Amino acid sequence: MTNTPNADLGNEPVTVIGLGLMGTALAAAFLDAGHPTTVWNRTPAKAVELVAQGAVLAPSTADALRASSLVVVCLSDAASVREALAPHRAELVGRTLVNLTSGTSDEARELSTWTGDYLDGAIMAIPGVIGRPEAFLLFSGSPEAFGKHRDSLDRLGSATFFGEDPGLASLYDVALLGVMWGTLNAFLHGAALLGTAKVDATAFAPFANQWVGSVTGFISAYADQIDRGAYPAEDATLETHLGTMKYLVRESAAAGIDTDWPARIQALTERAIDGGHAGTSYASLIEVFRGQA
Amino acid sequence: MTNTPNADLGNEPVTVIGLGLMGTALAAAFLDAGHPTTVWNRTPAKAVELVAQGAVLAPSTADALRASSLVVVCLSDAASVREALAPHRAELVGRTLVNLTSGTSDEARELSTWTGDYLDGAIMAIPGVIGRPEAFLLFSGSPEAFGKHRDSLDRLGSATFFGEDPGLASLYDVALLGVMWGTLNAFLHGAALLGTAKVDATAFAPFANQWVGSVTGFISAYADQIDRGAYPAEDATLETHLGTMKYLVRESAAAGIDTDWPARIQALTERAIDGGHAGTSYASLIEVFRGQA
Repeated sequence: MTNTPNADLGNEPVTVIGLGLMGTALAAAFLDAGHPTTVWNRTPAKAVELVAQGAVLAPSTADALRASSLVVVCLSDAASVREALAPHRAELVGRTLVNLTSGTSDEARELSTWTGDYLDGAIMAIPGVIGRPEAFLLFSGSPEAFGKHRDSLDRLGSATFFGEDPGLASLYDVALLGVMWGTLNAFLHGAALLGTAKVDATAFAPFANQWVGSVTGFISAYADQIDRGAYPAEDATLETHLGTMKYLVRESAAAGIDTDWPARIQALTERAIDGGHAGTSYASLIEVFRGQA
Repeated sequence: MTNTPNADLGNEPVTVIGLGLMGTALAAAFLDAGHPTTVWNRTPAKAVELVAQGAVLAPSTADALRASSLVVVCLSDAASVREALAPHRAELVGRTLVNLTSGTSDEARELSTWTGDYLDGAIMAIPGVIGRPEAFLLFSGSPEAFGKHRDSLDRLGSATFFGEDPGLASLYDVALLGVMWGTLNAFLHGAALLGTAKVDATAFAPFANQWVGSVTGFISAYADQIDRGAYPAEDATLETHLGTMKYLVRESAAAGIDTDWPARIQALTERAIDGGHAGTSYASLIEVFRGQA
């Protein structure tokens, strides 16, 4: 054996259960940072490279759990987590379970009842950037567990803690992904529209990105309005937005591209206006999403 | 008369036709910058304050046109522009017509046939910021006209020229507004979702805005892919996105908020996947918007 990271006594031992692409990246980041790292996977062959890098392959789930007080689980879904851990619940006592498996907030809340030291996490990064600061990791659950293991979790990327409700990490995850999908869809629709006038997507992108920078200012202002529960039209009324939305629908139709996406945006605004928000700011649209308008 | 801006011979005379909120702001910005400014409005009473600031109120549209070689029109719609200017087309010869009236690209292209010196413009700002650099003004049409009057147009905000097709300013306008609506809707939906877990919108906003910063990186990368016509899944496949989209729909349903917005995003992705894009990047969704998938 030429591998000696386990000799770094300053780093707490960690166990990683589940060696898909992401689990492998997590284990590799712990190894790189000098953590004694134990791994387990249903198919042990997946561990070969990690073992070559210094990981210890546990012969069983129970052995994997016993090896470390910090146990990170990254499986395909919540059912796989239950299946893997249910026979070993007694082993979880006194350990911190960090569940980085994708799932819903309700699944996170259910798993949190298995151990007092539970952290649920979501990873906003591809496996290739794990271990770098641009990998965002969202955590929620036990504040004590996060405080105790924060340094270790920071090895994986930039770790943020959202609060005691174990479901928060999952909720933030999908809410942020939703922001990404909404922004990207709108960019792609705009690129399709401008493409019909022979504008390259790479010509549009810098203006879109500069404009998105301005939109973050609107987001901050509207967040204030939402928390105050009042939506004064300091910039433009929903009625004014509706007028220009109709232009986007018309331009899309004239250009022969999809009209469904802008028509949906228009319909949401019309619903808010029907709900009494013609003269309020764009923030009032949240009441449509809440089902109140 | 105590007003002397007209005495500043370094600034070219300008005419502003249409004194709604925006037209008034445009005329005021020209006056502030020291341009001899002539105004016309169907209801002359709207000009009272501008005249007090030094503007000259023309007794007729023809007089207004004759007063300046740079004529800025800001009316309610293209029909109003045609109605106001059609009787005076002969007066447009030798002048630059800058049409800042909201409208479609086809309306801009039609009006551009009225004079060789035509610029169509779109204003991405509220009247209150006109004259400041954060007011973005988009122009397209005659490059010579833009070159000749660029300094004057920069008095109104930050002026960008997009090209010779007079329709481009309108297209960029709605495409950029579309990016705003898509981003804001997604933020408001996410705020509604997190609100059910007692997360304030002002707590969510900084994370959303930080993440939007990352999304601009995806936009740049995807723009390259679109122009190359190839969508390698360097980050994540559409299939992977689809998996997490389903979580957003499930979370929304469980929280009792609107599921239609995320379901629409999911449906678009499913259409792209049905079109053969399961293993390509998110950029391939542009083919759905183009009507090709």
